[in-house]
Amino acid sequence: MNNRKYNVAILGATGNVGRLLLDVLIKRDFPFNQLKLLASERSTGTIIQGRNGVDYPVEAVNSNSFTGIDIVLASAGSSISQQFSEDIVKAGAVLIDNSSAFRMDKNVPLIVPEVNPEALKLHQGIIANPNCSTAPLVCILKPLQNYYGIERVVVSTYQSISGAGKAAMEELIETTQKAINKESFVNNVINQKLAFNLIPQIDVFLDNGYTKEEMKVILESRKILGLPELKITCTAVRVPVLICHSESINIELKKSSDVKEFKEVISSNPNVKVIDSPSEKIYPMPISAQGKDSTFVGRIRKDESKENTFNIWLVSDNLRKGAALNTVQIAESMIKQGII
Amino acid sequence: MNNRKYNVAILGATGNVGRLLLDVLIKRDFPFNQLKLLASERSTGTIIQGRNGVDYPVEAVNSNSFTGIDIVLASAGSSISQQFSEDIVKAGAVLIDNSSAFRMDKNVPLIVPEVNPEALKLHQGIIANPNCSTAPLVCILKPLQNYYGIERVVVSTYQSISGAGKAAMEELIETTQKAINKESFVNNVINQKLAFNLIPQIDVFLDNGYTKEEMKVILESRKILGLPELKITCTAVRVPVLICHSESINIELKKSSDVKEFKEVISSNPNVKVIDSPSEKIYPMPISAQGKDSTFVGRIRKDESKENTFNIWLVSDNLRKGAALNTVQIAESMIKQGII
Repeated sequence: MNNRKYNVAILGATGNVGRLLLDVLIKRDFPFNQLKLLASERSTGTIIQGRNGVDYPVEAVNSNSFTGIDIVLASAGSSISQQFSEDIVKAGAVLIDNSSAFRMDKNVPLIVPEVNPEALKLHQGIIANPNCSTAPLVCILKPLQNYYGIERVVVSTYQSISGAGKAAMEELIETTQKAINKESFVNNVINQKLAFNLIPQIDVFLDNGYTKEEMKVILESRKILGLPELKITCTAVRVPVLICHSESINIELKKSSDVKEFKEVISSNPNVKVIDSPSEKIYPMPISAQGKDSTFVGRIRKDESKENTFNIWLVSDNLRKGAALNTVQIAESMIKQGII
Repeated sequence: MNNRKYNVAILGATGNVGRLLLDVLIKRDFPFNQLKLLASERSTGTIIQGRNGVDYPVEAVNSNSFTGIDIVLASAGSSISQQFSEDIVKAGAVLIDNSSAFRMDKNVPLIVPEVNPEALKLHQGIIANPNCSTAPLVCILKPLQNYYGIERVVVSTYQSISGAGKAAMEELIETTQKAINKESFVNNVINQKLAFNLIPQIDVFLDNGYTKEEMKVILESRKILGLPELKITCTAVRVPVLICHSESINIELKKSSDVKEFKEVISSNPNVKVIDSPSEKIYPMPISAQGKDSTFVGRIRKDESKENTFNIWLVSDNLRKGAALNTVQIAESMIKQGII
């Protein structure tokens, strides 16, 4: 670790993840010098106060915003990332991008620092942060792969609305209030009613009948784990929860294990916390995982219908490990490895 | 079908399912003569108006309540069913019971009329109605078993609060209002907070780490399908939805199929409706299935991680096919088969 300080820009600074990026940078004492908050024209003039008491003005982003910047942490959506990626790289900065724009690009490392930090060395100016359901999933799959080998994974997600942005969160609260009041309502931000409902669609549908979200979990997990043939399938469902994504996961290992050993193996990732004491009604839930950095796993039990197979329940703050935290951890890992 | 009319009692008439039993009996033009509404002492004097305009007074249940009754439809919980089952059978009535009290009793048929109506012939006075997640599940498993054979089933449920009763529904609405108002709250009816949250526990935990609810889905499916060795596993999760249970199901068949044929096979059960047009954002959701009799299935697609395997999404009104409707259908099937 050197003592250098970095000029950091947050692109998309006023969004759910953008605000948390600022928070995480300060909280983790990231070695920043200049800290530049960038957003669209309409956010110009907004002041965001950091947890360090400093007021950060939000500037409108343009092609020249990146001069003198070392690291751009972006969470402004795919089109904005695509629009400015060339400017960022030309300015000599590294783009660590939360959008799906570059994740499957073979020239772009897709990184969860506890899983594949070595892939950072191959970067060409752009590094991608995985989908918010994928990041916590690979945190447990990696140690299982190392220790047992993974035969197959079946995932059903229970995803909160914060993944769809701040406006969608506000819409869930407003429409839930209307549902309680028995008033009629329509949804404008997301395309279906979510109040007291479930939506078995996240992102658009692809020709194979899967949603883009489901294919992100499948394809990104394979890329991050370096297992292009990994047998994995996913059903992604939006639930009326504000923050935290949950996953019901059925994992078939290549070797036998028991619950005790399984717990020890996944706990070898220091960011994975096993919360599993059913007799005391202790298991991971969104309201208890919210605002926390760890990936929480519980309900770990053998699936008696198949040899070497386990059912588990995973909960993780989708704005943190699924987004802002992992993005900052990528930057930290680059510094640690002397890549930047 | 004879022209006989039956004296029917509803035990637990003031609950979520009890009220719906009355509604379903009248709506389906069930051939009843006397209709007696029974509940605990504290509901005495309550009048429930049927959709036929008739006012039905609720009587306090006691050992003598069943004299002259032919059919008792019970939804008052396991202990009440156990308490009165002997009185009911002694009075010469048939008990069709919604509770879990007798489901796994080898002398008690566990029935979904489209699946195993023949088992009704073996009844000894008591017939059990399955768990509200099991009933819709076996409606699709049965035709798949007949046509292909089932190799293995992995179920993750998304269960509404109405399965826990009326008071729990009211509590979800009240606590959600408090969460919106940012007021603190505690839950009294159910043991965890459900507002904008998920609870990976339904019913109590067993020694094997599964909840009783999860084992109900496993054991009851095997009994109803007559497949004691069926490979099936389940993770059951409570979601902040008022009515309708949803299930993400991964089904491995013994033979190959394609999506078109799979849809045709499950549609051979007339109560199963395939709602599956992703390009038009048409798939089953709780708010659209609520109040409907059918079991809705969508998101049907091949699971490329395993041969002969499909992912599907199922939604069903847990108070109807999962409870009241199936109970009345059992009585109808007994009449049709000349068993009563």
